[in-house]
Amino acid sequence: MITDINIEPARHSFENLSSRPKKDAKQLNTIIETIYDQVARDGDRALKDLTQQFDNCTVKEIQVAENEINNAGKNVSDELKSAIRRAKSNIEKFHTAQLSNTIDVEITEGLRCMQKSVAIERVGIYIPGGTAPLFSTVLMLAIPASLAGCKEIILCSPPDQAGNINNVILWTAQLCGVTHIYKLGGAQAIAAMTLGTATVPRVAKIFGPGNQYVTAAKSFAQHYGVAMDMPAGPSELLVYADETCVPRYVAADLLSQAEHGIDSQVILVANDTKFVDAINIEIDKQLQELPRREIAKEALVNSKAVVLNEVVSAFDFINEYAPEHFIIASETPERYIDKIVNAGSVFLGNYCPESAGDYASGTNHTLPTDGWSKSYNGVNVDSFSRKITFQSIDKRGILDLGDTIITMAENENLQAHANAVKIRLMDLENKGV
Amino acid sequence: MITDINIEPARHSFENLSSRPKKDAKQLNTIIETIYDQVARDGDRALKDLTQQFDNCTVKEIQVAENEINNAGKNVSDELKSAIRRAKSNIEKFHTAQLSNTIDVEITEGLRCMQKSVAIERVGIYIPGGTAPLFSTVLMLAIPASLAGCKEIILCSPPDQAGNINNVILWTAQLCGVTHIYKLGGAQAIAAMTLGTATVPRVAKIFGPGNQYVTAAKSFAQHYGVAMDMPAGPSELLVYADETCVPRYVAADLLSQAEHGIDSQVILVANDTKFVDAINIEIDKQLQELPRREIAKEALVNSKAVVLNEVVSAFDFINEYAPEHFIIASETPERYIDKIVNAGSVFLGNYCPESAGDYASGTNHTLPTDGWSKSYNGVNVDSFSRKITFQSIDKRGILDLGDTIITMAENENLQAHANAVKIRLMDLENKGV
Repeated sequence: MITDINIEPARHSFENLSSRPKKDAKQLNTIIETIYDQVARDGDRALKDLTQQFDNCTVKEIQVAENEINNAGKNVSDELKSAIRRAKSNIEKFHTAQLSNTIDVEITEGLRCMQKSVAIERVGIYIPGGTAPLFSTVLMLAIPASLAGCKEIILCSPPDQAGNINNVILWTAQLCGVTHIYKLGGAQAIAAMTLGTATVPRVAKIFGPGNQYVTAAKSFAQHYGVAMDMPAGPSELLVYADETCVPRYVAADLLSQAEHGIDSQVILVANDTKFVDAINIEIDKQLQELPRREIAKEALVNSKAVVLNEVVSAFDFINEYAPEHFIIASETPERYIDKIVNAGSVFLGNYCPESAGDYASGTNHTLPTDGWSKSYNGVNVDSFSRKITFQSIDKRGILDLGDTIITMAENENLQAHANAVKIRLMDLENKGV
Repeated sequence: MITDINIEPARHSFENLSSRPKKDAKQLNTIIETIYDQVARDGDRALKDLTQQFDNCTVKEIQVAENEINNAGKNVSDELKSAIRRAKSNIEKFHTAQLSNTIDVEITEGLRCMQKSVAIERVGIYIPGGTAPLFSTVLMLAIPASLAGCKEIILCSPPDQAGNINNVILWTAQLCGVTHIYKLGGAQAIAAMTLGTATVPRVAKIFGPGNQYVTAAKSFAQHYGVAMDMPAGPSELLVYADETCVPRYVAADLLSQAEHGIDSQVILVANDTKFVDAINIEIDKQLQELPRREIAKEALVNSKAVVLNEVVSAFDFINEYAPEHFIIASETPERYIDKIVNAGSVFLGNYCPESAGDYASGTNHTLPTDGWSKSYNGVNVDSFSRKITFQSIDKRGILDLGDTIITMAENENLQAHANAVKIRLMDLENKGV
């Protein structure tokens, strides 16, 4: 159960109630720097050595061979394949709707401005290893990358001790348009995609979740001109429950977040203490049945319930918290939509669990945590492209706008900026255009 | 003139030819950390002390008073006001076209996914001081912030020794919807907007150019959960000149970039050596007349000309360089548009100088430098908002999609994720929905 219950907290305490546990990333930087240096110096040799050291695996070929990929599907059940295909179809449908058209505006006669979305040429996707294969993240990153039009989609994931990447990951990667797969995990995978080696090409942007080493290595990539999707922290869920919530469902949703890890953040905001009590009873009941109940229990220790009867106050708190996932447990969730300022992805109604969005509803599950939804959004098709602007000016256009540019440039003391216009105007006036 | 001329360089040398001078930012971090610590500890007192120390100015009130702002316009000429209004109108027209509609997709019966653009509540804009007032950057940042719907737009700019911010900056800020203006410069301005003090509110994202201290302080803000527009480096221009270019115009454009600072990057790519020679003659001629010729000369020392006769090779090099500003000096620039993969803003044709985009064409001038256009775009309306996703699922929707979610969750060993669906399906099946 959630024991940290805050009833009608004062507004000045919202910031404190929203604070996440602080981590100090500085100590990791020395380790990460050493790994980058090793990869920069020894290339593929370093990657093999580090895989031996950290993954306890002797890799002969870093790149996954075509026949390994082609054979992967044999070991994936038809039921799972069909579920993944269904999820892919939903994710594709929603992300296709995100594709942007070229903007083309005639500002004045002879002056046009345009904005065109152009895919990042080569992107990197990191998929963590571990006991469970995170094939859902392959869907969430490779599908928008493909839709955006990225030419090369590189995927790195750590091999098991036998030197293999999980078959479901391989099968899903091929299904979603990944072009190159490498048996690489941890900071060395990120360093390889950042620096490039004989085998692994350098990418322009790196996406995907990972442990603290992977996260630190992604930040470090910026020193080498490689971007990342967003800053990362432990996964979070905030549920707002009003009088029409279903306590059993809310409890199940909170537990689905709590099972992620002991550092998961679970926040319940309700408009009455009695809903907190009802949900807590359900949490304890459902917890018994969970294989990962020890993890969930520990996560609940750090969790909070906040009771705020006024809707305005509740949403002031929620926006201050800025949750990654935000469930509105209500029969009429629509009436709250316009109050949401800061959130990653929002789940509307009593039949909309977070796990729907984690897997198959169509939205992306790579979302800003740790309050970053105040300034970042989740991964979408735009994350894999850039909006390049264009301006086209002809003789009429520069004759019309020239004086404006000259006046402004001269007032910023940039005479050469003014000259670039003057030299053209002079020619045109001499020609009597 | 440009003396570093590279004729038909081999493809393997493109990366090296594209490399920018490296800076080591690490040494700055100690200085920045000290300033952050001081602002965190002493708040407004620290801001006043640091302004005394770095700007040699005793500031009584950090916030610019309403009457100072209202009086600013008296000291701005009508000619300049009218030019700024004209630029504003063009910038507004193009940035309004960037506003995104809500996306609302019915994925299947009972399952809807939506994406809604929501403005960042409070943003910060930094405008550097110095001899020239950079009012053009006020336009480029405050206009899209206003259009996006940011509720609070904070502007910091260093005061002169008399304790005043330039009148043109004040007048432009008010014109473009800035809500609060502070007399603060350097790293202390960034620290104030990141941490918040009694006077200066904490923002979610910081925009704007600055010297190496400002840039380092913006990066440092990420440790406190505050985002920034993009990584910064010296300004750059690449011109591609084909046989229909006008050498005098190309020379003027290159010089307009070179006058920015001695670290400005100027690159000329031409399809024939004779155009490089013709442009060089013009550079030397025009250079004589420039007030900032000493700066421009130094910048030219680090500049390069690259001759590549094949259009494909030329654009391979240009995309490897990934310029901030890219002029296509040609009578028929349209035929090159589809070859552009990496660039910030593109200027099409012989009558389209970079200074048009710097001030008044309508495009934004806050653009990715240092090769970052491979993964970032320039500032646009989206830079001031987030795309929040929503999913709405009703009973039919979860009955239809439930098995897919359960299969996927169980294959990722996340039983509580599956349970959140099962508990709903069980109810619905019991009720015979």
